[in-house]
Amino acid sequence: MSVRGGDRPPLPPRERMLQAAIRLISTQGVTGTGLREIIAASDAPRGSLQHYFPGGKDQLVTEAITIAGEMAARRVLRLADQLPSRTPGALFAAMAGAWRDIYARRGFAEGCPIAATAADTAATSPVLRDAARRAMDRWQGALGDALAGLGVPGHRARPLALLMLSALEGALIMARSRQDTGPLDAIVAELAPVLDAAGPAAGHGAGC
Amino acid sequence: MSVRGGDRPPLPPRERMLQAAIRLISTQGVTGTGLREIIAASDAPRGSLQHYFPGGKDQLVTEAITIAGEMAARRVLRLADQLPSRTPGALFAAMAGAWRDIYARRGFAEGCPIAATAADTAATSPVLRDAARRAMDRWQGALGDALAGLGVPGHRARPLALLMLSALEGALIMARSRQDTGPLDAIVAELAPVLDAAGPAAGHGAGC
Repeated sequence: MSVRGGDRPPLPPRERMLQAAIRLISTQGVTGTGLREIIAASDAPRGSLQHYFPGGKDQLVTEAITIAGEMAARRVLRLADQLPSRTPGALFAAMAGAWRDIYARRGFAEGCPIAATAADTAATSPVLRDAARRAMDRWQGALGDALAGLGVPGHRARPLALLMLSALEGALIMARSRQDTGPLDAIVAELAPVLDAAGPAAGHGAGC
Repeated sequence: MSVRGGDRPPLPPRERMLQAAIRLISTQGVTGTGLREIIAASDAPRGSLQHYFPGGKDQLVTEAITIAGEMAARRVLRLADQLPSRTPGALFAAMAGAWRDIYARRGFAEGCPIAATAADTAATSPVLRDAARRAMDRWQGALGDALAGLGVPGHRARPLALLMLSALEGALIMARSRQDTGPLDAIVAELAPVLDAAGPAAGHGAGC
């Protein structure tokens, strides 16, 4: 799958390699993604890897996952800004909805690249495990900030962010194995009311 | 890591290979687990693979994940039988607690082998993706039965089982990447009251 978008100016080779790495890792994991495949998918010249990433696969994956964490963090903040109904449950629905859209458009090939990196490397590479942890922390931090912006009390924002990300990560695995977005719908149906109960209108029955 | 337990009679080679496959997949995924490694870890004679699994890695992994699903299902039912406090929240705490014990005893190397198979193969192998789906369904079905046995109404048991498994799978990924059981504690603290509110004593303040 090419990573060069339609009307956008083409990315320079280094950025193309990082975006290709993110896409390939989200589809087949870190272990399953070879460097040659990343180079081929990014239309980068031979020798690019050594040139741009002298630290090899560890450097390339670390940078790719750092970018993925930053993208996930910004996506959460953008979704929170655009909510029609400004509640924590609506934010969770929007986060799951973004994945529903991806699966509707492109099939069930992709999962979360950060989770894929964490699962593949937790036992085998402290460097990549640490990169995944930092990316996850960045994402959880942004989600905590977004929840606080929706009126969730400070001490509730962090644990609720962790619950949301845990449930989302697990549901993505289930959705991919079933080739069905049902698990995403189910966690939203179950958790949205719980999340809204932690919002500013908790107990008053009005969510905005 | 040897799969031959202390005082138990040694397993026959075929079963040793399957148990070694489960352990290795839970640690490093399907893609990261080579057949030679499985044979070495199970102390099986050379040539065992062709002899016992003429269908190759697909057959071995399919059988291993089927067993993992059956083990997960039985573990849930056993935990539900042994609960000191017979509530859905206590069952969730016991499920997370079983993983806490594993991490305390053996470090954070292992995750869920079913999730690892689903994540690694969802985009690349319909056969293994299907095996992971069936294993996950078996596990969710047993958990739904256990919840029903704890008084959760029939129509609530299946979606709550899915939420519990999603949150647990996601928290395992986070716990491994952080080398810390905090995410497991957090999802239990957040979800146990929600689950108990779906139990037979919902709204009455008594959980048994």
